[in-house]
Amino acid sequence: MEKLQSAYLFPEISMREVQHIEKYPDAKLISLGIGDTTEPIPDIIASSMANYARSLSTAEGYSGYGAEQGNKALRKAIAETFYRDVRVKETEVFVSDGSQCDITRLQLLFGSNVSIAVQDPSFPAYVDSSVIIGQAGDFEDKTGMYGKIQYMKCLPKTNFFPDLATASRSDIIFFCSPNNPTGHAATRQQLEQLVKFAKENGSIIIFDSAYAAYISDDSPRSIFEIPGAREVAIEVSSFSKFAGFTGIRLGWTVVPEELSFSNGFPVINDFNRIVCTCFNGASNIAQAGGLACLSPEGFASVHSIIKCYKENAKILRDTFSSLGLKVYGGENAPYLWVHFPGSKSWDIFTEILEKTHIITVPGSGFGPEGEEFMRISAFGHKESIIEAARRLGNLYP
Amino acid sequence: MEKLQSAYLFPEISMREVQHIEKYPDAKLISLGIGDTTEPIPDIIASSMANYARSLSTAEGYSGYGAEQGNKALRKAIAETFYRDVRVKETEVFVSDGSQCDITRLQLLFGSNVSIAVQDPSFPAYVDSSVIIGQAGDFEDKTGMYGKIQYMKCLPKTNFFPDLATASRSDIIFFCSPNNPTGHAATRQQLEQLVKFAKENGSIIIFDSAYAAYISDDSPRSIFEIPGAREVAIEVSSFSKFAGFTGIRLGWTVVPEELSFSNGFPVINDFNRIVCTCFNGASNIAQAGGLACLSPEGFASVHSIIKCYKENAKILRDTFSSLGLKVYGGENAPYLWVHFPGSKSWDIFTEILEKTHIITVPGSGFGPEGEEFMRISAFGHKESIIEAARRLGNLYP
Repeated sequence: MEKLQSAYLFPEISMREVQHIEKYPDAKLISLGIGDTTEPIPDIIASSMANYARSLSTAEGYSGYGAEQGNKALRKAIAETFYRDVRVKETEVFVSDGSQCDITRLQLLFGSNVSIAVQDPSFPAYVDSSVIIGQAGDFEDKTGMYGKIQYMKCLPKTNFFPDLATASRSDIIFFCSPNNPTGHAATRQQLEQLVKFAKENGSIIIFDSAYAAYISDDSPRSIFEIPGAREVAIEVSSFSKFAGFTGIRLGWTVVPEELSFSNGFPVINDFNRIVCTCFNGASNIAQAGGLACLSPEGFASVHSIIKCYKENAKILRDTFSSLGLKVYGGENAPYLWVHFPGSKSWDIFTEILEKTHIITVPGSGFGPEGEEFMRISAFGHKESIIEAARRLGNLYP
Repeated sequence: MEKLQSAYLFPEISMREVQHIEKYPDAKLISLGIGDTTEPIPDIIASSMANYARSLSTAEGYSGYGAEQGNKALRKAIAETFYRDVRVKETEVFVSDGSQCDITRLQLLFGSNVSIAVQDPSFPAYVDSSVIIGQAGDFEDKTGMYGKIQYMKCLPKTNFFPDLATASRSDIIFFCSPNNPTGHAATRQQLEQLVKFAKENGSIIIFDSAYAAYISDDSPRSIFEIPGAREVAIEVSSFSKFAGFTGIRLGWTVVPEELSFSNGFPVINDFNRIVCTCFNGASNIAQAGGLACLSPEGFASVHSIIKCYKENAKILRDTFSSLGLKVYGGENAPYLWVHFPGSKSWDIFTEILEKTHIITVPGSGFGPEGEEFMRISAFGHKESIIEAARRLGNLYP
C-alpha cells in the first residue's frame, strides 16, 4: 500500500475542483473531467427499476440473495445482445457491480506473482490495483513507472498500438478499447496482432470494452470478434457509460471456457470461486434495470443518449482543432485526447481551469506517455458543452 | 487459489439441494439452510427506492458516480443510528455493497504477509478470503485447518469464547458477534477481554456485527461499546439481515481514526484508498433504501420483521429441544446451533434432508469444531417454519 503514488487521479482532481470553487465561488464551473454520465436514464429503464423495487414489498416480488454470478435472464440477455455472433455462452457471463470492481477481482484471481503489462497511457485502475495486490514492484521517480510493470507505449505515431516486436512477455496484458484516455478504438488488424502476441507468449489479455457502445466504424466491439481470442482473453465491460449506470452500478465480465492457466486448469472455475467467495452479486434492482436496457425499446433509448454524447464530442473536437491543436479520439469514444506539445499536462490543467473554469484531466495521470496531453470528456448537458466550447475557443485569444 | 478446499460451503449446499429436488420432484422442500431473508421489504423502504429509481429519469433526479465511501446523508445516518453513544464519526463510516465484499477489501488492505486468527467455528468467508489473498498456508487434511491460520476454539463449555490465555498472537483477529454460526452474542466481559488481548498483542480485530439488530439482551451491539476498541478494531456490518437487503446489497465498515498500523500510519487512510481504487460505491438506489431504513418509521418496520424471525427461532429452538438435543443461539441471533453428539454433521445434513426434506447447514462447514453441530436458520415464512417444526418433531419417531 505504501507504494501507491500520491492520490488516485480522480480524487486528486476532485480536491482541486473544490479548491477552485472556494477561490472563485461565483464562477460557473464546467466539468469535462471525470467521465461521468449526465443525462437522465430513459423512462422505460427507470420504471423497470422502480417497479422492481416496489415489488420487493410484496410476497410475490420479494427476493433475497441472487446468484453471485448474476440473474440468469440478464446473463442470457448480455450474451445475446453483445456476443450473439461470437458464441459467448450465458454461463461465461458474470454480472458485476462495475468493471473497476471486477478488475480488482481479476487481480485477486491472478495474485501477486504474475507480471503485468499496461498500455501507456492507460486508465489508472489497472496499475493501482496491481500495486495494491503486490505485482508492481517499486515506483521509480525518474521514469514515473513501477519497476515490475511493463508500460507499452501507445502513441499517435503508431496509431495508439504498442510495438509488439519489442514488447517483452507478460502474464497479463490489460488492454482497453475504445481506449480510456486516448479515445482510440483498436482496429481489427491491431487486435489480431494482440491476440497472436498473447497466444505466442502464453499471456492472458484482460480486455476492457466499457466504451464499446460508442464505436461508430467497423472496429471490433469485443475481443471475441478476433479468432482465437477465446483461448487468451477475458472481457470486462459495464453498463456505466453504455446506459448511464455510473451510480446504479452494473457491469459484467466474460471468461471463456477455453481459457486456461499454464497448468491447464480452466480460469472460469477459479473466477467463479472468487465471485462466490468475495462478492454477493450486483444489486437485484440494478440487474432489473440492466435487463430493461437490453429490451429493444431500452436499447434504442440508450443509444439515443450515446448519440448525444457523441455530438458533444464532435463540438469539442472542432473547438480544440480550431485552436490549432491536434485532437485524437472522440469518434469511437466519449473522450478526446488533445496534444499540447511541450507542455506539462498538470500546468495545462491549471491554465484551462484558471482561464475558463473548466475541469479537464491531465494526461500524465494515465502514465508517463500521457504527458503533454489532456483527456477531455464529452459527457455533459448540451448547453454546458456549448458553453465550454465557447470558453475554450477563447483560450488563446 | 488451488489451496481452496472443495467448493465454498453454500454453493455446495445449493448443489445438494438441486440433486434432492431431482430425486424427489414432488417433495415440498423447506430451507433452513442459507441464511436468506424471506419477508418483503417494508413499504416505506421499497417506495423510497422506487421513487429514487424513477427520479433517475428526470434531469433533477439523475445522478452519476457518487462518493466511493457512500452518500454523506447515509454515512451520517449510520453513525447516528448505530453509534450515537460511542462517538463514531460519519467520516469513519464507509458504505459498501455488503460485508462479504468489505471483508475481501480488508484482506486486500492487509495483504498476504499478515497472520490471521478466526473463531472456530466461523463464517467461511474469513478463511476463504484469507486463502485467496495468500495468508493461509497449506491445508492440512488431518486437522482440516490451514497451517498459517490460528483457529480459536469457541465451544459451549467456554461460552463460545476462545481461551485467550493459550492463544498466540495474530496480526488480524476476525470476530463475529452475534456469531454466525453459533448464534452466541459475546458478553461485554468477553469483548473487554478480546480488546485487551488485541491491545497487548498489537492485533487488529475485524468485528463482524451483521446480526447486531437481533440482540435482545444487553450484549454489546458494537465493538466500539468497549473502551479502547477504537485503537484496535474495525467493524463490518450490513443491511442484509437487518433490513432484508440480501439481494439489494448494502453494508458498511467503520474504521476509527485512532487505528494505526505498527508504523503509526492510520489504517483509515489506506482503507479509503482501497475503496477509491477497487470500488465505485454501493448502488445509489440501495443507498436511498438504506436511508429509508434509518428513518423512524423505517427503523420500526424493520424491527417488526426481525421480531418475526426471532419468533421463528423460538419455535425451532423448542422443536430441537423437544428431541432431547442441546440447542444454542437463537436468542440474540437468527441462527440455532444444535448439537448432535457423536455424529458427522454432513451425515446429519443428509439424514434430515432425506427424512424431512429440510435443508440445514452442516457445522463442519464452519471449521473443525463445528463437527457434530448443525446450523439452523430461522429465516422463513411463519407457515414454513411451523411446517418445518412439525416435520422435525418427528425426526426420531
